[in-house]
Amino acid sequence: MIKTITVRTNRQTELVDITNEVARAVEGVSSGICYLYCPHTTAGIIINEGADPAVAEDVIAVLNHFVPWKFGYKHLEGNSPAHVKASLTGPGTFVFVEEGRLKLGTWQRIFFAEYDGPRTRKVYVKVVPD
Amino acid sequence: MIKTITVRTNRQTELVDITNEVARAVEGVSSGICYLYCPHTTAGIIINEGADPAVAEDVIAVLNHFVPWKFGYKHLEGNSPAHVKASLTGPGTFVFVEEGRLKLGTWQRIFFAEYDGPRTRKVYVKVVPD
Amino acid sequence: MIKTITVRTNRQTELVDITNEVARAVEGVSSGICYLYCPHTTAGIIINEGADPAVAEDVIAVLNHFVPWKFGYKHLEGNSPAHVKASLTGPGTFVFVEEGRLKLGTWQRIFFAEYDGPRTRKVYVKVVPD
Repeated sequence: MIKTITVRTNRQTELVDITNEVARAVEGVSSGICYLYCPHTTAGIIINEGADPAVAEDVIAVLNHFVPWKFGYKHLEGNSPAHVKASLTGPGTFVFVEEGRLKLGTWQRIFFAEYDGPRTRKVYVKVVPD
Repeated sequence: MIKTITVRTNRQTELVDITNEVARAVEGVSSGICYLYCPHTTAGIIINEGADPAVAEDVIAVLNHFVPWKFGYKHLEGNSPAHVKASLTGPGTFVFVEEGRLKLGTWQRIFFAEYDGPRTRKVYVKVVPD
Repeated sequence: MIKTITVRTNRQTELVDITNEVARAVEGVSSGICYLYCPHTTAGIIINEGADPAVAEDVIAVLNHFVPWKFGYKHLEGNSPAHVKASLTGPGTFVFVEEGRLKLGTWQRIFFAEYDGPRTRKVYVKVVPD
């Protein structure tokens, strides 16, 4: 069964911590794999440090730095940089589940990566028990 | 069982839409996960917008922009930029299968990403039913 | 069951070939999927060419080139470039297992990607048989 997490983003480019929502989706599963999938083409999922919110800001700032806002883009909707960022970070990832919990590293948090917001977005979550 | 999709690429760097081939590989599976894996080191798989072909061209153009063609590369075959692009976009990804179909987003298509063509390439597909 | 591979890195940025360690983790499994997960926020996993070690050096060199060492980083620990690289290459990947072996491409090797070393690191490995 696939669950859907809804994410409301507030800025054009932004990482939104969705770890708690994902943790709720694995409740009741003692061990297995939790798969996350972003069905959008101008957004993605990034797992990185969440203790200091400055890290998420740095990640977004550098992506905005080396994927140029202005370039000879052929796609005329103006959001080609967002499509490039989504292609780089990918639509899906996974986290192991052990003893009923997401087996993230000490500093890891799961972020919805918005590259063309603000918008209301979805993340699909599928948990496969062992 | 692992199925193999063969892809013929025509340019040095190019995104080739393989969604229909992948869709055929999941036929007969009502729900599960479809895994895609590229066994090459100068190519990969990207899921992004396919409605406007200009998006794929923009993605490739920007990759070619920030991964330099000329650099103090130590690998002497001349295709180091392709290895870098393959390392960035990764060899594998997955798509959920639901009601017998790939659960892609509205605008998502699956592309074989060629970074050192033209060549004949392979993609491994494994479908794990629930 | 999740196995843990320990990796000792020796440089600040470095790709360490862990293919043999991963191959040992799949011993006894005839077919399935081997999942690899890096629980660190300044490291990752990259699958790319291992025949010529110069390729790994080129990949690291280009990552160090386009993710700037100096930038208006807000995170004060000085390792924001490492967080960016980890966000780009991702924490996890997978390889199919067939006939008791990792189904890697001819030139593919699995690397632990260190972006903020030298350190002692971990990789989680989970093998799901068919």
